[in-house]
Amino acid sequence: MVQDDNTEVDSGARARRGGGRAGQRRRGGGGGLRQLDWTIPHLTDAPVEPLSAEGVAAVDNAAMRILEEIGIDFLHPEARQHLKRAGAEVTEGSERVRMGRDMVRELVAKAPSRFTITPRNPERRIEIGGRSQVFVNVSSPPNCSDLDRGRRAGNTEDFHNLIRLSQHFNCIHMLGGYPVEPVDIHPAVRHLDCIRDKLVLGDKVVHAYSLGTERVEDAMEMIRIAGGLSHEEFEASPRMYTNINSTSPLKHDWPMLDGAMRLAARNQPVFVTPFTLAGAMAPVTLAGAIAQQTAEALAAIVLLQHIRPGCPVVMGSFTSNVDMRSGAPAFGTPEYMRATQMSGQMARFYNLPMRASNACAANCPDAQAAWESAFSLWACVTGHANVVYHAAGWLEGGLCASFEKFVMDCETLQQVIAYNTPIGVTEEDLAVDAIRAVDAMPPSQRHFFGAEHTQSRYETAFYAPFLSDWRNFETWEESGSVQTPERANRMWKQILAEFEPPAMDPAIREELDAFVDRRKAEGGAPTDF
Amino acid sequence: MVQDDNTEVDSGARARRGGGRAGQRRRGGGGGLRQLDWTIPHLTDAPVEPLSAEGVAAVDNAAMRILEEIGIDFLHPEARQHLKRAGAEVTEGSERVRMGRDMVRELVAKAPSRFTITPRNPERRIEIGGRSQVFVNVSSPPNCSDLDRGRRAGNTEDFHNLIRLSQHFNCIHMLGGYPVEPVDIHPAVRHLDCIRDKLVLGDKVVHAYSLGTERVEDAMEMIRIAGGLSHEEFEASPRMYTNINSTSPLKHDWPMLDGAMRLAARNQPVFVTPFTLAGAMAPVTLAGAIAQQTAEALAAIVLLQHIRPGCPVVMGSFTSNVDMRSGAPAFGTPEYMRATQMSGQMARFYNLPMRASNACAANCPDAQAAWESAFSLWACVTGHANVVYHAAGWLEGGLCASFEKFVMDCETLQQVIAYNTPIGVTEEDLAVDAIRAVDAMPPSQRHFFGAEHTQSRYETAFYAPFLSDWRNFETWEESGSVQTPERANRMWKQILAEFEPPAMDPAIREELDAFVDRRKAEGGAPTDF
Repeated sequence: MVQDDNTEVDSGARARRGGGRAGQRRRGGGGGLRQLDWTIPHLTDAPVEPLSAEGVAAVDNAAMRILEEIGIDFLHPEARQHLKRAGAEVTEGSERVRMGRDMVRELVAKAPSRFTITPRNPERRIEIGGRSQVFVNVSSPPNCSDLDRGRRAGNTEDFHNLIRLSQHFNCIHMLGGYPVEPVDIHPAVRHLDCIRDKLVLGDKVVHAYSLGTERVEDAMEMIRIAGGLSHEEFEASPRMYTNINSTSPLKHDWPMLDGAMRLAARNQPVFVTPFTLAGAMAPVTLAGAIAQQTAEALAAIVLLQHIRPGCPVVMGSFTSNVDMRSGAPAFGTPEYMRATQMSGQMARFYNLPMRASNACAANCPDAQAAWESAFSLWACVTGHANVVYHAAGWLEGGLCASFEKFVMDCETLQQVIAYNTPIGVTEEDLAVDAIRAVDAMPPSQRHFFGAEHTQSRYETAFYAPFLSDWRNFETWEESGSVQTPERANRMWKQILAEFEPPAMDPAIREELDAFVDRRKAEGGAPTDF
Repeated sequence: MVQDDNTEVDSGARARRGGGRAGQRRRGGGGGLRQLDWTIPHLTDAPVEPLSAEGVAAVDNAAMRILEEIGIDFLHPEARQHLKRAGAEVTEGSERVRMGRDMVRELVAKAPSRFTITPRNPERRIEIGGRSQVFVNVSSPPNCSDLDRGRRAGNTEDFHNLIRLSQHFNCIHMLGGYPVEPVDIHPAVRHLDCIRDKLVLGDKVVHAYSLGTERVEDAMEMIRIAGGLSHEEFEASPRMYTNINSTSPLKHDWPMLDGAMRLAARNQPVFVTPFTLAGAMAPVTLAGAIAQQTAEALAAIVLLQHIRPGCPVVMGSFTSNVDMRSGAPAFGTPEYMRATQMSGQMARFYNLPMRASNACAANCPDAQAAWESAFSLWACVTGHANVVYHAAGWLEGGLCASFEKFVMDCETLQQVIAYNTPIGVTEEDLAVDAIRAVDAMPPSQRHFFGAEHTQSRYETAFYAPFLSDWRNFETWEESGSVQTPERANRMWKQILAEFEPPAMDPAIREELDAFVDRRKAEGGAPTDF
């Protein structure tokens, strides 16, 4: 059972949703705070491409040489057997797998360039690939923080509250990895509680960690139950996803491979995200780091496409640089931006969707956090990341989920969505007649505030932020000089106070709880790897 | 005389400068703080273009219709006479001027697409246009603030200190408008003190306000003296610049026109920046606001090209939206970004350099200030702004110069410079051999920290920020949880404490002081307009 208050979903009214067109404003939804309607953002600009076509070909060639000449360790016997059958060179008694570029290209070409994922509420279906860009909450930090209680280890209550924020904001499209790790739940059963609670508190696409056999099988079953689906319906199209990381350099470990293979076999999407920090787990040069990232990602994609040709996959990018003085990872840097854009080029070269992150290294939600996140976010926009992981709430290079940062990030995510509204150039948009009309007024009235052209458009002409304070200094000072994190603090409290979970059929809820109870009674999943 | 301490330039050592290539790191210079070498940043990416070619043509056509059908008020009789001679329709007794598109296109085409400006130190020469992007300090706020003393009206000491910061940071390329208005100096002589002090405390390109005849003539003479130039040498190439704003909608006022005409006549650059806030002084639609901005800018450029064909001009963009609830200008918004990018498209259509701004609406140097400025800055990068005004120090929609924000902005400006470093894709960059070498190590040593490929590059591989705190949370907390503005506060104090002005020939200094003393004795400039 969900353990804290305010989650009795049977009594929960379905969140009101606006009429629909992208960029439209609304009030309502939990919190009484204005937010944009649910929409799948569409990238309207051409991507920024730091590599020339020759540069892309050079990185591709380097990735292929890594796969052919050096190879990748697959720490999973079945994975190696699959790859051997697919034509790879696998030495008996070794984990190393080498694969020729013809085989790689043939199998990678089977992956779809775009696909949908449909959660238990079909209105929350998302598109991955093409010009779509979807945002995922911060995932997997061990700690969380807010201005009132400071920093603390992850726990169930905070996990629930961050899921509520993720569900509340329409600019968050998927409930990704745990927004904070609830370490007060035993690892053997944590996945059961967490995935059930994500399914109950939210109705968006849900992620499952690939941490071995049982967790992934449990997750697929719970998501199937929550969707009211038969096994055949579940497998007919994507309903969830997982994300796996390579253990760079050049290694895919057993638990993630096992989970990924199980999802792929059932046609569920796998994001493959190498952990190629330049200068640490990958070459210090960006071209080298991206070549290695590409090789590690393609190696797993080849495996999955052999297991189930055409299964949905995403090429993930997490390449950034490290602080060469300390070895600590840095994010939102110029190098992170370029690596993200280069990753986008490589993903498009292979006709694959791409994932990146809205990351920062800052320790508190101050100006550094904001500029690092803004740099990361614009890298995701200009690099055409189809999925932006850690889009809201991330601090400390991923070691902490901040409640205030979550709200701040949602403000900038909404601005990115508004930015992608196409520019109108009709006669009415060009407004020569409006300019003529204002010019015809007496000099003291020659402004556009009162013009009919303005009055008929002002409510929707501009994006209206919910968090920015645009009052003048004197008014702002008189009202207490409240800075951004304090404003965000008030907002998440209001959102949580007013949160109502989406409706769920009582019979489905019962079946879900029964499954969780049974699996807990069976001991959950092993914790010995 | 400069009135406060630390400005005895005769004793000042010329700031040390590093060897040179863009992106190289250095220590030294005032403050002992690491900063990038002086370099003229080069935009390496293709611009982002929200308008299609048809959209650009539609905005051009609307601008031409405004100039032809509606016209622009020129509140300067000589300007109207010039335009009449150039072929414009000028009604006797009216300030309104209408001009046909053939005349506009012919005269605008005479303007150079790029030019240089050479200050008293020729090593600080800058390029305007093409793929160059230069940064200018915050200009013209009436107030300034810092964490110690709070917000206050501008004064001479703060003016000097902000000029020192502008001179210190290599990422600031021009000493633009007053970084704060020193209201303790009488307006009749303020320009004499301020420009002299800018010339003494700095050696970068200097701006002069176009506030009527005397100020502009005085400024040109002082800059000529400081450069040790004959009148002919001064006029032979750009040595300074001014920026003029239209009084939108559709008006150019006398003081600015008079100054601009005098600079153009002597071949000195004029930036023409309409004040077209969408929904207030311009249409609420972005296409309409940019059409009006284009018309107002071209009208002045036509005038200047008739006065001196080929004189250097810049098309300025200041189009943003207003808060439709209060009418207050907003900056760093999605609309600001798009307007800036559209302005870049229009400037390139006319083959003119473009100016935009690193602006924000926030009241303190917090996260909102950082994300609004980051959004503005990336608009300048993606829109190919050749000149980024207000690049460091701006707060409150331009009503306040913040010492801490100045330092914070210089951090992000440096990151933009580093971002524009081209990506290498040589065999060495692709690093397949380095990956092979690391792979050949025992498993526990399979990381790149110790690899030769890393060791030979780590000092210059990544941009190293001077302001970001990348330490882990525990270390950051133990050392006092210092947030970004507090770190910036320490830095500007250190920079000012260690500042040494650039050398100036004592004879030139004497001539400059004598000029200022004489003009003060004559009463300075009129203040009755």
